[in-house]
Amino acid sequence: MTDHELDALARRVGEALANRRLWLATAESCTGGWIAEAVTAIAGSSGWFDRGFVTYSNDAKADMLGVRAATLETHGAVSEATVSEMAAGALDRSRADLAVAVSGVAGPGGGSPAKPVGTVCLAWARRDGPTGVVTVHLDGDRAAVRRQTVILALQGVLERCV
Amino acid sequence: MTDHELDALARRVGEALANRRLWLATAESCTGGWIAEAVTAIAGSSGWFDRGFVTYSNDAKADMLGVRAATLETHGAVSEATVSEMAAGALDRSRADLAVAVSGVAGPGGGSPAKPVGTVCLAWARRDGPTGVVTVHLDGDRAAVRRQTVILALQGVLERCV
Repeated sequence: MTDHELDALARRVGEALANRRLWLATAESCTGGWIAEAVTAIAGSSGWFDRGFVTYSNDAKADMLGVRAATLETHGAVSEATVSEMAAGALDRSRADLAVAVSGVAGPGGGSPAKPVGTVCLAWARRDGPTGVVTVHLDGDRAAVRRQTVILALQGVLERCV
Repeated sequence: MTDHELDALARRVGEALANRRLWLATAESCTGGWIAEAVTAIAGSSGWFDRGFVTYSNDAKADMLGVRAATLETHGAVSEATVSEMAAGALDRSRADLAVAVSGVAGPGGGSPAKPVGTVCLAWARRDGPTGVVTVHLDGDRAAVRRQTVILALQGVLERCV
């Protein structure tokens, strides 16, 4: 996906949120703010984007989103349990209706046999509905893993704008 | 500044922070997470970047960073008073030693005679030293204003890594 296509995806997300009068919040670890950057590149995003949490350290995940120490210790920062708590925390601590959370091993370091570079967990939560969570294994270097994560996060938001 | 040059600037910021054992936090309005995205593009940024606050709405500035309602009402979201409180709030609510905060009118809407499109306020705060604050008037479209803001923010961080 080119920069132009990513911009078009973010624009579709904005239109879908605006049409349904939904507000979005983001909770990002491995993408480090890129999801929020992509949606706020769209003029008028102040009408549907509330806030973003860039919880890069484990302390930040706990302080800013209420992720439990036990979850981080037992499952790790890159886990479905952690991103589910991040998404729930982003809803609890915002005025948003829909939240997306991501945490992954962007590389080049930080990989392990169980969670190699490219392992990314994503979660979506709606205030009035079910949450979704997924683990994916992405190819490429740090920039490629981060970019694909942004795309998957936004595609998931779009699917949930119903 | 090209993407490559912006990446090189972020890399220099990371090296300077790492050399001085300083941790960074970001508080962003108009850039919407781009500063955090730029620094976390650098491998190893988990060793010097703690967290980022993307406080797009006024509610977010108050909830996440403790910006006072009176400040927002009297001076507006795009003001030296607001970014100073954002930077101070980012230090108070993080484990970082140095924080940068930005708020501006990226356009195309939102401008006024007093604060036309391209007006951006930036503040830097260090836990152990003085803060700095500046207002600039940037040319170009939304993307250009945001990009120049990211560059100024990072250049200011670099200057304060002493």
